[in-house]
Amino acid sequence: MSVLVVGSTAFDDVETPFGSRKACLGGSSTYFSLAAALFTEVRLVSVVGEDFPAEHKELLASRGVRLDGLEVKEGATFRWSGRYSADMNSRETLDVQLNTFGDFRPKVPEAFRDSPFVFLANGAPGTQASVLDQVPRPEFVVADTMNLWIDIARDELMALLPRIDGLILNDEEARMLTGESNLIRAGRKVLDLGPKLALVKKGEHGAFLFSSYFQYAMPAYPTEAVVDPTGAGDSFAGGFMGFLSTCDSLSLWNMKRAVAYGTVTASLTVEGFGVDRIASAGIKDVDRRFQELVQFVSV
Amino acid sequence: MSVLVVGSTAFDDVETPFGSRKACLGGSSTYFSLAAALFTEVRLVSVVGEDFPAEHKELLASRGVRLDGLEVKEGATFRWSGRYSADMNSRETLDVQLNTFGDFRPKVPEAFRDSPFVFLANGAPGTQASVLDQVPRPEFVVADTMNLWIDIARDELMALLPRIDGLILNDEEARMLTGESNLIRAGRKVLDLGPKLALVKKGEHGAFLFSSYFQYAMPAYPTEAVVDPTGAGDSFAGGFMGFLSTCDSLSLWNMKRAVAYGTVTASLTVEGFGVDRIASAGIKDVDRRFQELVQFVSV
Repeated sequence: MSVLVVGSTAFDDVETPFGSRKACLGGSSTYFSLAAALFTEVRLVSVVGEDFPAEHKELLASRGVRLDGLEVKEGATFRWSGRYSADMNSRETLDVQLNTFGDFRPKVPEAFRDSPFVFLANGAPGTQASVLDQVPRPEFVVADTMNLWIDIARDELMALLPRIDGLILNDEEARMLTGESNLIRAGRKVLDLGPKLALVKKGEHGAFLFSSYFQYAMPAYPTEAVVDPTGAGDSFAGGFMGFLSTCDSLSLWNMKRAVAYGTVTASLTVEGFGVDRIASAGIKDVDRRFQELVQFVSV
Repeated sequence: MSVLVVGSTAFDDVETPFGSRKACLGGSSTYFSLAAALFTEVRLVSVVGEDFPAEHKELLASRGVRLDGLEVKEGATFRWSGRYSADMNSRETLDVQLNTFGDFRPKVPEAFRDSPFVFLANGAPGTQASVLDQVPRPEFVVADTMNLWIDIARDELMALLPRIDGLILNDEEARMLTGESNLIRAGRKVLDLGPKLALVKKGEHGAFLFSSYFQYAMPAYPTEAVVDPTGAGDSFAGGFMGFLSTCDSLSLWNMKRAVAYGTVTASLTVEGFGVDRIASAGIKDVDRRFQELVQFVSV
């Protein structure tokens, strides 16, 4: 089934211990789309400036991403610059130019309004909610968020949470949102705020999945060659939602496998600069790593 | 089969966000012994001062720990004081008084020299090696180490590594020992230094097991009630070695299960101050958590 994603498209300037790249194709919705498109049709709602090259659109389209909702506005595309620490586990944002993304008002095309799976990439909770107003009856909605919104838009975020099925956030954000330093308690407490699922990302340490009925842990895929961690979280979400959209039910077992598929798509992304690796991966690469991951964790 | 452990016995003064305790029974060999004794006979080689109370010896003996190798020397028992951060993930050592442990020269009693399983708890690598000189033909030897020895006794440590089967260390120490910031590479590189197995502990993030043939990840047991993390690593080692000593082979499958059992015994330890919880646990508690852990990670 189709997956709708609403989020940013960007040019990223990235510095890592392995080198630096200017104006990589990036943004939350791009990473999500390329990961999810390994499994299913992806419907993109985002905004770019007039400087966004045709080749990027062609790349996305060639991978199965429908661009009906990619708005082109006067001005420049969102631009982000960042530098990673030597161990890749922290990064410093050097510059942010929101440009055309600054007043992004997502418009979901008529043809996308029946999307059963919806991913609200990181953004202002009010903007995320405006997407749900346009998609009347989704089957499964997952939102990402970040410390900024927990800090400055807590009320809007709290209003959004009962409207979504799953919330994705990182460990620090889960602690910040719930005030619980123990991550297991934090994850469970997210469920009290509305979502039926909480997906807590821990970077190189993998992810936890919490629901009222079960909790589940998945380590990161054991990659030895992290080149650029940008987009890992959105690629994780893309693999998770993409795989789930192909399942015949939202069972516990499928949820667990979806976390493993998300782990795999994230592992592909971080092995290249920008979208280089995830955009050249095939479902065979994904399935091979999924099997390796199952071996890696099976008792 | 019997497990020999050589390491420290201590009084710990501990401060955590949940309270503080003075003169808890502690030390690496104590935590290891209580965890391993859930599975098998444990043979302890350690040293205490004349101030070490009979009740502590009785506790250890009642749990199946043989004390033939517990030397009582003139002076005071090793004493450690520490304080944990609010999130329990870091600790500050407030005071260390080595006392009788300062010039510990382990003497393995004649009756213990046929021990098939040997655990060399954290200590000077030269001292650890002196134990192996006294145990002629062990089947399986695991050593723990720490940043201090990597720093000040690297040559002795390098001489020890080819003599042991497995090395246990934490993520920071694995990076320090190998100079690799990527933890997967670091773990694999440990194997080049001699041991057939590297067990990398990651605290709340679980553990990795590396061998030439496989690598394996286990998240921590999802405990919501961490009261005092002291001894988690040694309890992990105790569960790992204790379970393994009951297996009929050192197969991959048994190694994986041993990591899960170590994860369980560590989770029990951290739920009480000092040895309170691990010393009152039974094999039924362990087996129940083992099953929960299998569910927690199974895809």
